[in-house]
Amino acid sequence: MCEKDKETTTMIIVLKQDAPDAQVREFCHELQDMGLQINDSKGSDTHILGLIGDTKAIAESWVLANPVVETCRRVSEPYKKANRKFHPDDSVIDVNGVKIGGGNFAVIAGPCSIESEEQITYCAQRVKDAGASLLRGGAFKPRTSPYSFQGMRSEGLDLLKLARRATGSPIVTEIMNTEHLPLFENVDLIQVGARNMQNFELLKAVGRQKKPVLLKRGLANTLEEFVMSAEYIMAEGNENVILCERGIRTFETSMRNTLDLAGVVMLHKMTHLPVVVDPSHACGHAWMVPQLAKAAVAAGADGLMIEVHNNPAKAKCDGAQSLTPDQFDELMGFITKEVEFFGKKMN
Amino acid sequence: MCEKDKETTTMIIVLKQDAPDAQVREFCHELQDMGLQINDSKGSDTHILGLIGDTKAIAESWVLANPVVETCRRVSEPYKKANRKFHPDDSVIDVNGVKIGGGNFAVIAGPCSIESEEQITYCAQRVKDAGASLLRGGAFKPRTSPYSFQGMRSEGLDLLKLARRATGSPIVTEIMNTEHLPLFENVDLIQVGARNMQNFELLKAVGRQKKPVLLKRGLANTLEEFVMSAEYIMAEGNENVILCERGIRTFETSMRNTLDLAGVVMLHKMTHLPVVVDPSHACGHAWMVPQLAKAAVAAGADGLMIEVHNNPAKAKCDGAQSLTPDQFDELMGFITKEVEFFGKKMN
Amino acid sequence: MCEKDKETTTMIIVLKQDAPDAQVREFCHELQDMGLQINDSKGSDTHILGLIGDTKAIAESWVLANPVVETCRRVSEPYKKANRKFHPDDSVIDVNGVKIGGGNFAVIAGPCSIESEEQITYCAQRVKDAGASLLRGGAFKPRTSPYSFQGMRSEGLDLLKLARRATGSPIVTEIMNTEHLPLFENVDLIQVGARNMQNFELLKAVGRQKKPVLLKRGLANTLEEFVMSAEYIMAEGNENVILCERGIRTFETSMRNTLDLAGVVMLHKMTHLPVVVDPSHACGHAWMVPQLAKAAVAAGADGLMIEVHNNPAKAKCDGAQSLTPDQFDELMGFITKEVEFFGKKMN
Amino acid sequence: MCEKDKETTTMIIVLKQDAPDAQVREFCHELQDMGLQINDSKGSDTHILGLIGDTKAIAESWVLANPVVETCRRVSEPYKKANRKFHPDDSVIDVNGVKIGGGNFAVIAGPCSIESEEQITYCAQRVKDAGASLLRGGAFKPRTSPYSFQGMRSEGLDLLKLARRATGSPIVTEIMNTEHLPLFENVDLIQVGARNMQNFELLKAVGRQKKPVLLKRGLANTLEEFVMSAEYIMAEGNENVILCERGIRTFETSMRNTLDLAGVVMLHKMTHLPVVVDPSHACGHAWMVPQLAKAAVAAGADGLMIEVHNNPAKAKCDGAQSLTPDQFDELMGFITKEVEFFGKKMN
Repeated sequence: MCEKDKETTTMIIVLKQDAPDAQVREFCHELQDMGLQINDSKGSDTHILGLIGDTKAIAESWVLANPVVETCRRVSEPYKKANRKFHPDDSVIDVNGVKIGGGNFAVIAGPCSIESEEQITYCAQRVKDAGASLLRGGAFKPRTSPYSFQGMRSEGLDLLKLARRATGSPIVTEIMNTEHLPLFENVDLIQVGARNMQNFELLKAVGRQKKPVLLKRGLANTLEEFVMSAEYIMAEGNENVILCERGIRTFETSMRNTLDLAGVVMLHKMTHLPVVVDPSHACGHAWMVPQLAKAAVAAGADGLMIEVHNNPAKAKCDGAQSLTPDQFDELMGFITKEVEFFGKKMN
Repeated sequence: MCEKDKETTTMIIVLKQDAPDAQVREFCHELQDMGLQINDSKGSDTHILGLIGDTKAIAESWVLANPVVETCRRVSEPYKKANRKFHPDDSVIDVNGVKIGGGNFAVIAGPCSIESEEQITYCAQRVKDAGASLLRGGAFKPRTSPYSFQGMRSEGLDLLKLARRATGSPIVTEIMNTEHLPLFENVDLIQVGARNMQNFELLKAVGRQKKPVLLKRGLANTLEEFVMSAEYIMAEGNENVILCERGIRTFETSMRNTLDLAGVVMLHKMTHLPVVVDPSHACGHAWMVPQLAKAAVAAGADGLMIEVHNNPAKAKCDGAQSLTPDQFDELMGFITKEVEFFGKKMN
Repeated sequence: MCEKDKETTTMIIVLKQDAPDAQVREFCHELQDMGLQINDSKGSDTHILGLIGDTKAIAESWVLANPVVETCRRVSEPYKKANRKFHPDDSVIDVNGVKIGGGNFAVIAGPCSIESEEQITYCAQRVKDAGASLLRGGAFKPRTSPYSFQGMRSEGLDLLKLARRATGSPIVTEIMNTEHLPLFENVDLIQVGARNMQNFELLKAVGRQKKPVLLKRGLANTLEEFVMSAEYIMAEGNENVILCERGIRTFETSMRNTLDLAGVVMLHKMTHLPVVVDPSHACGHAWMVPQLAKAAVAAGADGLMIEVHNNPAKAKCDGAQSLTPDQFDELMGFITKEVEFFGKKMN
Repeated sequence: MCEKDKETTTMIIVLKQDAPDAQVREFCHELQDMGLQINDSKGSDTHILGLIGDTKAIAESWVLANPVVETCRRVSEPYKKANRKFHPDDSVIDVNGVKIGGGNFAVIAGPCSIESEEQITYCAQRVKDAGASLLRGGAFKPRTSPYSFQGMRSEGLDLLKLARRATGSPIVTEIMNTEHLPLFENVDLIQVGARNMQNFELLKAVGRQKKPVLLKRGLANTLEEFVMSAEYIMAEGNENVILCERGIRTFETSMRNTLDLAGVVMLHKMTHLPVVVDPSHACGHAWMVPQLAKAAVAAGADGLMIEVHNNPAKAKCDGAQSLTPDQFDELMGFITKEVEFFGKKMN
């Protein structure tokens, strides 16, 4: 398949009309020294170079910096391991027995942050009973303000593991720093949060270990940048990446973020990786979550990530967007039927 | 219901701590002269005015311009006729016999622009056979470039009416200027396009006539601004307004716009007006339209607006986002079942 | 110069690798029938068409709709009359004796809206005395809410003309509808507001008359769309267009809009038309206006548009962003020296 | 001054009209247990709580999650150490003898990335000769693609230190991970890049050491979030923070980002920290840099950060936005005079 990658024109460069021949030749030699073939097309008035070969490592800004270049355009995608063109079948990621992708639908649920053993164990049992197959809970919390609750940190991880022991549900929790990696050895699915989507050192670190990774889209990152961040993880050897759309930043102020469900559709064309949707963070309002969850299923999501708290009014974090266990029960009743209606299999 | 509006605090004004008493008194008199009651709350260190009454006509920028004011916040919504609080039941809009809203689902389909009698009549028949209840077709086309096809204008309107005669489907088409209004007398549903969402003179003009209006959301307008534009039409006496979400402008470049399905959910809370979704303009890619249409149904849309062209590759406008009649047939087969699954009634 | 336009490759089309030859030939004939030459470059693995000729009327969406096309890119700009490439020298627009552009700097000042004869005449005199060469004042006001003050309309225009008679300053005011055009016959510079930047019927109408036009950038319009709207006016025969940057909509909430001064720099490369900056609407806070005005001069603006009100706290519109006459005096003292420092000539 | 903070209403909470008294009392007790005083204002129809005291640690989402709450608004800023209200004078940061802020202007210049000893030493000498007082150069490079040049890493840091020895200029370079901190001990000014602006663990780590920190604004972060990230560093004990505006992400595509010079003006109101501007990253086009640099000075920036490369066409990173040493010489000639014109002192 990489063969195909190598045979195709991957970048088109339009040269300036008045570019001196000597400089053009020098530029072409530079490109050839990188192992690229050049399809040179010179008309009476126009001069176009089609590059054939692996241009993934060539930045457009480098091409544009050359004085002979008028403009350039990448034709092939700058990602390979995550690219559906080279891996047409859906990837199915196995999280300790729970399958996500390729027709397998999974619901991840739990509180925004772990607050006590009672709280996390109670939530774990309720979301499991309602049909969630994975338990979420934050131990390290990224907060805009240094004065906000920063999570129970390693102690929280311990409580989350107790909840797993009690319920048997695999656990998902967020890592914020490479130095914390040893603490995550027993976590089933390691989450990289939106604010760290381009924390490249962290991406490399989770790419060098074997646990599956749930990568959330950055607040203002394009879909291509999102897939490139997955590529960072995969390029280090860990191909078990699940993408998570969680809303993007726009001018709208009535909701926390704008959920980009069209992004889910586009991601499924760009990449073979599974895509789950987090409606809770996207909108920030608990009352919107059920309807958005239904829309996400219809948009083709491979799973959902939903915040559920035993007592949202007392939650230390993001209570306004948390469902109660009873509300979650009701939602799961509908979602289970909807997943079937759309031809997928609920885990 | 307006009573309720009158009895409640509708705006909170925080005064500056060092505001001179005389100036504060003068400001209060000004507010009272507008017919407002003031709930004056002065603590040892803080001074808050709660305004009771109709503050719809008071702009926040006017309040903020007063030197005694630190900050202010509107508590009530600045719209009344469109507000669900004063009209809890869904509005059902009747477009020449086709009902939209309140559980009634309708599909509007047809080509982006009317190109010839054969083209529009053929498309009209095919979308009707597939289950669309309303026919769309552009006669006056808003185009970014003055050198692009500007539509067949009044001649196009005539052809659209011929297609209605042939099929019996009510017709929807866009108005771009108040001076064209007489030409729209026989149109069943008058569309105001995204670029004219804040063309206030046009809003007033369509508000002064009786035909229902399909109002599209501007590319970068908030949901509150969108509802305020509906309010412009309603304030002139025409309450038959259907809202249409068609994608907003964001930083993402892989799609034409970002479809805001969470906006549909929020609009249903803000207003009693029906909301339809146009996935074709939102994404700009025909292949994405079916999946987005399904997601729109699940998000609670009251209808869909979909571009269908007999031969997209030859379309004079927006061919890249048009479904073929066969693709539309297939989509409608699914949508019909999905609308039922979600408990609505297909027109 | 248009010759140059005709000889150059203006669009590059990459064909799909598996596109059937017959379909490609048909597509090429279609392009040739439009008067385009084709530079056909077929490698072992890639097939690129370089179009030579006038592709301004060809929409990229039309090209992309053809099933043989993988992707396309416009190389030349889609605008001609506004394009600096075909008109390298700065345009100088003469507004009843006041020159803007090409090293001539002009300040437009006055209240957001005309409220009474005393108000507008007083403001007119003060801004003239301070050094403004043009008087602004809104008669038709675009307001988000139908319940806000909509301007004094034609009566306001009459008062503005009285103020001109008193001071001799040419006047600038906004048009909102083609039907109002006869009322603007005596206006010196007709403003098209941000919300009407893509009201194409209005653009055509002001293009068919001879008065210079001040075109404001839409809240969420790209610079290319902005220049295309100028092109609409110019294509109808009126080349006297002045562009106005007034802030764009972003995610930031501490200011009304985000002033795009880099846009001024880019516009000066794209087009020969003069560019003025309106810091008042951009930020919405009077205290920010002086510093932003200074930055605009340094960014290369050809003029400023600044709101000045005799009593901002009583202004019927946008008081929070208006300078007092005294504040404006002080600002003009600095700006006059700064314009000279940057090598321009104050009108 | 903190006294003032404690005595003022810092948050206003509007209660729901039908909120049960018992629940409201319970909520008030909860607030009082946090050490807050409540200014309770109950009218016939409205019930407002004004909170007096330190609400920095209270998230609005927590308040909104309580079922008795209709809406809430923070009146005081959520940051304290960075807040100009509690520190009215400009902070002056000393970077190894170079002063920034409070009327002191400094230029930071150098290549995007360190490529060799010759390259960095040559650039260092040229930018110093031109008048730059600090040398920049990237050793750890955040790149969107894992296949792009990732910087020379610790070897690059060594070369940068050699260049400092040769020229005497203090050095600035970016840190990407807490684990690399020991390598930065000899760096004069540690940069936290835009993609790490909300990497809170990294912010805490640079806050726990003593070197000054240059914090770049995230691509899509509000000004308040930007100041909150500075607050993270300051809350750990390091008050030597310099802010850097480097462009935000918008819908515009002709430039890499949109430089937010109004943000510089607003930041100077919000905080006492110095603000420098990086026009190179903001626009991505070398030809725009000089004009934007001039505009930044006029907007009140306390410094500039400019990319200069010996041979932009061969640069391993961001060549398209780099000035040549000769172009930088010419720019510095103008900037030096402009800084004086605006009443500041060039370092």
